Amino acid sequence: MLDSSARLTGLLCGTQPMNDIWAPRATLQRMLDVEAALARASAAHKVIPQSAVPAIEAACQADQLDADALARDAALGGNLAIPLVKQLTALVKAADAEAGKYVHWGATSQDIIDTATVLQLRDTFDLLDSGLQATCDAIAKLAATHRATPMIGRTWLQQALPITLGLKFAQWLDALLRHRDRLDALRERVLVLQFGGAAGTLASLREAAPQVTQSLAKELGLAVPTLPWHTQRDRIAETASLFGMLIGTLGKIARDVSLQMQTEIDELAEPAAAGKGGSSTMPHKRNPVGCAAVLTAATRAPGLVATVFAGMVQEHERALGGWQAEWDALPDLARLAGGALANIEQIASGLNVNVPRLAKNLDVTHGLILGEAVMLALGDAIGRLDAHHLVERASKAAIRDGKTLYDVLAADAAVTEHLSIERLKQLLDPAQYVGQAHAYVDAALTLHTTRAQRAHSKE
Amino acid sequence: MLDSSARLTGLLCGTQPMNDIWAPRATLQRMLDVEAALARASAAHKVIPQSAVPAIEAACQADQLDADALARDAALGGNLAIPLVKQLTALVKAADAEAGKYVHWGATSQDIIDTATVLQLRDTFDLLDSGLQATCDAIAKLAATHRATPMIGRTWLQQALPITLGLKFAQWLDALLRHRDRLDALRERVLVLQFGGAAGTLASLREAAPQVTQSLAKELGLAVPTLPWHTQRDRIAETASLFGMLIGTLGKIARDVSLQMQTEIDELAEPAAAGKGGSSTMPHKRNPVGCAAVLTAATRAPGLVATVFAGMVQEHERALGGWQAEWDALPDLARLAGGALANIEQIASGLNVNVPRLAKNLDVTHGLILGEAVMLALGDAIGRLDAHHLVERASKAAIRDGKTLYDVLAADAAVTEHLSIERLKQLLDPAQYVGQAHAYVDAALTLHTTRAQRAHSKE
Amino acid sequence: MLDSSARLTGLLCGTQPMNDIWAPRATLQRMLDVEAALARASAAHKVIPQSAVPAIEAACQADQLDADALARDAALGGNLAIPLVKQLTALVKAADAEAGKYVHWGATSQDIIDTATVLQLRDTFDLLDSGLQATCDAIAKLAATHRATPMIGRTWLQQALPITLGLKFAQWLDALLRHRDRLDALRERVLVLQFGGAAGTLASLREAAPQVTQSLAKELGLAVPTLPWHTQRDRIAETASLFGMLIGTLGKIARDVSLQMQTEIDELAEPAAAGKGGSSTMPHKRNPVGCAAVLTAATRAPGLVATVFAGMVQEHERALGGWQAEWDALPDLARLAGGALANIEQIASGLNVNVPRLAKNLDVTHGLILGEAVMLALGDAIGRLDAHHLVERASKAAIRDGKTLYDVLAADAAVTEHLSIERLKQLLDPAQYVGQAHAYVDAALTLHTTRAQRAHSKE
Amino acid sequence: MLDSSARLTGLLCGTQPMNDIWAPRATLQRMLDVEAALARASAAHKVIPQSAVPAIEAACQADQLDADALARDAALGGNLAIPLVKQLTALVKAADAEAGKYVHWGATSQDIIDTATVLQLRDTFDLLDSGLQATCDAIAKLAATHRATPMIGRTWLQQALPITLGLKFAQWLDALLRHRDRLDALRERVLVLQFGGAAGTLASLREAAPQVTQSLAKELGLAVPTLPWHTQRDRIAETASLFGMLIGTLGKIARDVSLQMQTEIDELAEPAAAGKGGSSTMPHKRNPVGCAAVLTAATRAPGLVATVFAGMVQEHERALGGWQAEWDALPDLARLAGGALANIEQIASGLNVNVPRLAKNLDVTHGLILGEAVMLALGDAIGRLDAHHLVERASKAAIRDGKTLYDVLAADAAVTEHLSIERLKQLLDPAQYVGQAHAYVDAALTLHTTRAQRAHSKE
Repeated sequence: MLDSSARLTGLLCGTQPMNDIWAPRATLQRMLDVEAALARASAAHKVIPQSAVPAIEAACQADQLDADALARDAALGGNLAIPLVKQLTALVKAADAEAGKYVHWGATSQDIIDTATVLQLRDTFDLLDSGLQATCDAIAKLAATHRATPMIGRTWLQQALPITLGLKFAQWLDALLRHRDRLDALRERVLVLQFGGAAGTLASLREAAPQVTQSLAKELGLAVPTLPWHTQRDRIAETASLFGMLIGTLGKIARDVSLQMQTEIDELAEPAAAGKGGSSTMPHKRNPVGCAAVLTAATRAPGLVATVFAGMVQEHERALGGWQAEWDALPDLARLAGGALANIEQIASGLNVNVPRLAKNLDVTHGLILGEAVMLALGDAIGRLDAHHLVERASKAAIRDGKTLYDVLAADAAVTEHLSIERLKQLLDPAQYVGQAHAYVDAALTLHTTRAQRAHSKE
Repeated sequence: MLDSSARLTGLLCGTQPMNDIWAPRATLQRMLDVEAALARASAAHKVIPQSAVPAIEAACQADQLDADALARDAALGGNLAIPLVKQLTALVKAADAEAGKYVHWGATSQDIIDTATVLQLRDTFDLLDSGLQATCDAIAKLAATHRATPMIGRTWLQQALPITLGLKFAQWLDALLRHRDRLDALRERVLVLQFGGAAGTLASLREAAPQVTQSLAKELGLAVPTLPWHTQRDRIAETASLFGMLIGTLGKIARDVSLQMQTEIDELAEPAAAGKGGSSTMPHKRNPVGCAAVLTAATRAPGLVATVFAGMVQEHERALGGWQAEWDALPDLARLAGGALANIEQIASGLNVNVPRLAKNLDVTHGLILGEAVMLALGDAIGRLDAHHLVERASKAAIRDGKTLYDVLAADAAVTEHLSIERLKQLLDPAQYVGQAHAYVDAALTLHTTRAQRAHSKE
Repeated sequence: MLDSSARLTGLLCGTQPMNDIWAPRATLQRMLDVEAALARASAAHKVIPQSAVPAIEAACQADQLDADALARDAALGGNLAIPLVKQLTALVKAADAEAGKYVHWGATSQDIIDTATVLQLRDTFDLLDSGLQATCDAIAKLAATHRATPMIGRTWLQQALPITLGLKFAQWLDALLRHRDRLDALRERVLVLQFGGAAGTLASLREAAPQVTQSLAKELGLAVPTLPWHTQRDRIAETASLFGMLIGTLGKIARDVSLQMQTEIDELAEPAAAGKGGSSTMPHKRNPVGCAAVLTAATRAPGLVATVFAGMVQEHERALGGWQAEWDALPDLARLAGGALANIEQIASGLNVNVPRLAKNLDVTHGLILGEAVMLALGDAIGRLDAHHLVERASKAAIRDGKTLYDVLAADAAVTEHLSIERLKQLLDPAQYVGQAHAYVDAALTLHTTRAQRAHSKE
Repeated sequence: MLDSSARLTGLLCGTQPMNDIWAPRATLQRMLDVEAALARASAAHKVIPQSAVPAIEAACQADQLDADALARDAALGGNLAIPLVKQLTALVKAADAEAGKYVHWGATSQDIIDTATVLQLRDTFDLLDSGLQATCDAIAKLAATHRATPMIGRTWLQQALPITLGLKFAQWLDALLRHRDRLDALRERVLVLQFGGAAGTLASLREAAPQVTQSLAKELGLAVPTLPWHTQRDRIAETASLFGMLIGTLGKIARDVSLQMQTEIDELAEPAAAGKGGSSTMPHKRNPVGCAAVLTAATRAPGLVATVFAGMVQEHERALGGWQAEWDALPDLARLAGGALANIEQIASGLNVNVPRLAKNLDVTHGLILGEAVMLALGDAIGRLDAHHLVERASKAAIRDGKTLYDVLAADAAVTEHLSIERLKQLLDPAQYVGQAHAYVDAALTLHTTRAQRAHSKE
């Protein structure tokens, strides 16, 4: 049964480590981890006999469960925990009939499912955090290397003014560093226990409830929330949102790279890998396979985030659809975030930069993109308005006559009266007209370094 | 590898038959079906030698492929067809080296993937169509049975005026019948071949292109579209939209049933099934597990539909993300539609109707819900405005004094002057104030019967 | 109050005619049209006195209403019809106190709001239909003109094989023609009356209900549905879906045009208009302002469609949020569809095609894109596999040595032995390798003509 | 023109103060505020003459602009800043021809639009923050008052176990307090200047760029970001996400209230207000108009959040659709968040609690909901398993025979042997079986108080 729900697309925008976190066996194991911890915590406060613990712990091994049967029975009870507890209880009873009475004591299905999800999220956050670190490192390196490499800035998909390639990388880096901050804040709010029992009061644990709660959280390395949050899903929504935002930023990077990989632009290229993106019949083609994977994730993420948000409107003390909608949407978002990040990490780590082509593309308009630089310099001498008119006229002449802007300006006495040929050439050098690009790159690199040091000193 | 992408949730809102259509093996088989048909069609027009066909056909068996390797290699090429063709070619070559040269002749990856998807959609449509038929039959039966069973109509979650339970069923039926019409129209537009080659021109097939196209379509039982539609995805979007709309209608049904199943209302109940929705510690509880599954689908569908719509904005002759985003979103929608429909079919087929409780709930307001009926009758005699004031006053008195509306009105000479006690009782009988409910039920049942007859005469 | 809800962005992706359909005054007028028609229909069947009709009709003029007060009071009652009926009644009473009693007789707020929306949708469909016709005409003209203009086909944003510009236009046309079919089908299902009274039974109209319903529908030129559809919103969802699909197709066109407008590609350009998309300081720049508007619509539409779909899950006989969510989402979708269509109509009607540049871009790879053509021709002589190896080697050599593919192949005796120089030149002519492009263009044009003729013969 | 874009629905789920922040005039004024500040900042560093400042400042008054013309011309340039700068320049020139040359110096349209949006967001955050504070205060008061008021907890829309009404309020409070924390964190990241010039380098400001940036930020009370963020929209996405999450939490509250307002349940009611939610013909009806408004917002928000997320995938240095999609989606989200919050504040401030009905509803199952309490107590004596069987049997008997659970248990010697009648009565008192409910209420109230004190000490 499980096979029929598998997906051949799992690695198209996914990674094995992330898929492993959310795989069926891993999901069941996390639920069993919670059950085992619950047994220990309950026994520690004499809610269940200490003697029941070993049999329960021993049975909490996912490979002892019949996952197919579990998936099938889940449809009857409406969640995974009901058949899991049933199978677990049978296993425990087979080993120790008495211990079998104490499985899942005091907990409700949602306690197990939510807490297991939180444990999987913790693993997910760790994976994303190290991926973000590696990606930021790779991008920082690119930004430093190409801090001053001039390229054309493009607005509306049209050539505008020069920037540096380093500035583009610095912008990517700056956004990813904010996501690292958000991830830190998220851990604080999200990595908490869910434990409330059937109606969120832990009534069946009577006086022992607070102690069992504390011990259970400690067993699992989670914080204790103010109160159970069965139908308050802002933590989950915030998590989905971070995954979605991260994918959005990575999608922006992929869009830039793929646009710069266009055959006619050819400024950047994904690193070549054996069998990746090539075509034997079209050897000139280098398909942006990694970018496509990221853009796929970016097309899918908004709808999945919306699903989790829509699910927040839940009924009373247990939801009818809103909670259940998370079960596939949240793991899908985690997988897509992991896959998108891994692809960008790989791209950033081996990005091919075609520096000559970057220079050549700066000359596509034969200098028109630097009209503003000339206008500003001329403006100092003859006033901005006159300078504007003069350069505008020259630009139109250049287009009309198929000349370079330099040719037109150098032949215009109204210009050369104020600007020497040498100065004119300088003004028409894109590398000289990148404004604060270098400073911005430095600022982003400093931010990155500071963060890395802060992280390092924490360890 | 495939296991890690499987989902334990596959049957929580899914069915085995629908999951089977979209399972990894079935997906690969559908792609292989296209490859085999392509070989036959190409050979028929001498594009490839007839002698190559048997070896290709023989190798087109999904269980001969290494699905794990295929899923892994898909990440390199960016789609499933590239590694499939590679594995297929190796298999064919092993049997007949010469035949190996003619695998996948003239096709592009997207031809295979899209056409396979269309074949899976055909199966999906068939499954949904028979599910819709069965569901409509079951609901029609309910509507006929409860054509005249009075119940309270509720607006804003407040008791309003009487309706009949049959009318509620008739509304469900009417909407589902429209979906059947939409599904018919969809088949016409969607069940077409995708076959255009690398850039959508079939250039590599030279003069034979039209004939191979015709034969390939005939082999697969699909229509030939005006032209290839690699980056025109309206057919897929329309399909996603129908799935989403169907789920929306089913979600409305599930919401009604689950609200009427509330412990405090207790008018309807999902059919009991062994182990389904019950609770050993809370025997009074009958969880609407089927409704929850449908509402889960209804929470998820809008985001998935949005994903497919967002993917329509594709680049040039092959998309970078928009097409690829369909690969999981469309099957997920099909699975959810199948699961939601099966759940409603099951609920409709065995719905428990608590007729006494329906009657009792009509009396919750002690007659206030029938003030309008009295007002209209009185209005015939004393004018609507005066009647309105009189009944409004009586209603407020009933609320204030904890009496029934009948008690207040029967004690009011201004009323009894115009309405006999007998007439008053009649006016306060909910069954007498259901307007066109019976006629509407009949109209919906006629529509259903006509459609069923039309479908039958077609066969 | 109304001003504070206005939007400066109304024409950024909208048109005045479409905005006018959904403007506050127009919305109120449509609601009043329904009220007036209801009065006439009710009087025709003696439900209200004929004498009440003139005063009601006279008061049904939107400019007599206080729209600000109405918007404010709507918050109290929860919809627009309650304060509208209140203001309308006051107006009627001021003219004819007796007539004032018969305003809105038998109807519920939702009857008025939904039917008014259907009337606005009818206007919307008309506007879209004529816009689609004009757009299809313009694109058909482009397709005919450039039926055989070769251009490079691009997959994965990489140059792939030649196509014709006409084929690209034909694909746009083909998709838009399907939307015309869908629009026709939609009219049948959507242009129906909503009339059910407080709980959907028309109980307060007693025996006259069917006749009033028929007359009201006739007054408004709408069909009578099987039964009222207050909480069955598939018609609205289908409408939203068509708007969204249309926007998706238009978005795909805008993406293609904007990519082909890139400074470095320069194949197409939006028509120049005074003040549109130009930049005085960057005269080389032609911003794709129209495309941006369409892409904005395409970014917004999926979320709005999802909203309407999410709203389908409604409670009992009147919804609590799901219906109300349509009130802004549906008009927004209509406005975006209208704006996107008008932009593409304008672009298609005046599209600048840079034929020399199309030719030049075909040569960017120095012939590599035609390797397949040579391979196929050679394959006839020496077998496909050997031909493949030979061309692959030549392609790599061309890249390595910076030569054209022609130069390499013409210097290779293994090639010239089988292919004359003349034949080789022919094979490397992109116009000769466009497969079925011409035929596909013809097929789409025929479809367009047939549809136009069918539409014409209907008139 | 602007009127036709207005919405009659502006107050259905909106508030005047929030609408005012995003109204056309206010939007234009915020853009003009940025232009005026830019003039001052530029003059301070001699980029423009100090003498130009007064005329520019004087012209920066929104009511001097022709908003209709501006909205119309925006379609030509593709954004609002182009016609605004044009109109502004004309106004300045009319007063001081020389000053007219220095309008908008060094800035790009997006600098003005984004920074104005940030200023509007600051106002929005302030409004939401005070609304959150008032709402939390009101809910905290409710939680304290009903800390120990027992009510039935419901899961799956079925009666489950007792909770307290205070616990329900505490859960609302706890979630809203997290949103306050998120809002604080958001301010830090979002309230930053956008200032980069045409390609994000501020090249035209030459050496003065850093100083002008600092002064401009100071003028506006905003922080200076690491670098301009024209196509890095994570800040905007995070803002949209917070609005969406807040609406989700408020939607959950509205769902609970509206479910508890059902005629058949009648535990809670929105505060009555003149003309709000009442019905003259159905005086028993109290429509949850406020809840409906919130649920409308909750239906719409996910799609709008998804839109902003989808827009993150932007092209190069200026987007083609993704940025522009924010222009309506973000203000709509702000309006919905403001409206939803105001509705819940109003509901919480005047909520009608029907304490007798809460008690009565606890008795609907005649004690079955307390079977667990008895089972636990019995289990201490006879072991859990036997106790379970005993109580399960008694519960089934109670259902079958239409008795209360007490009656059945009190008549069973196997029970009374271990539990006195007094103890049995105590165990069947819902107020005695609410577990940690009181402690959870206290914990949430403490959190609220601590936060309020922290906020107070900051002031």
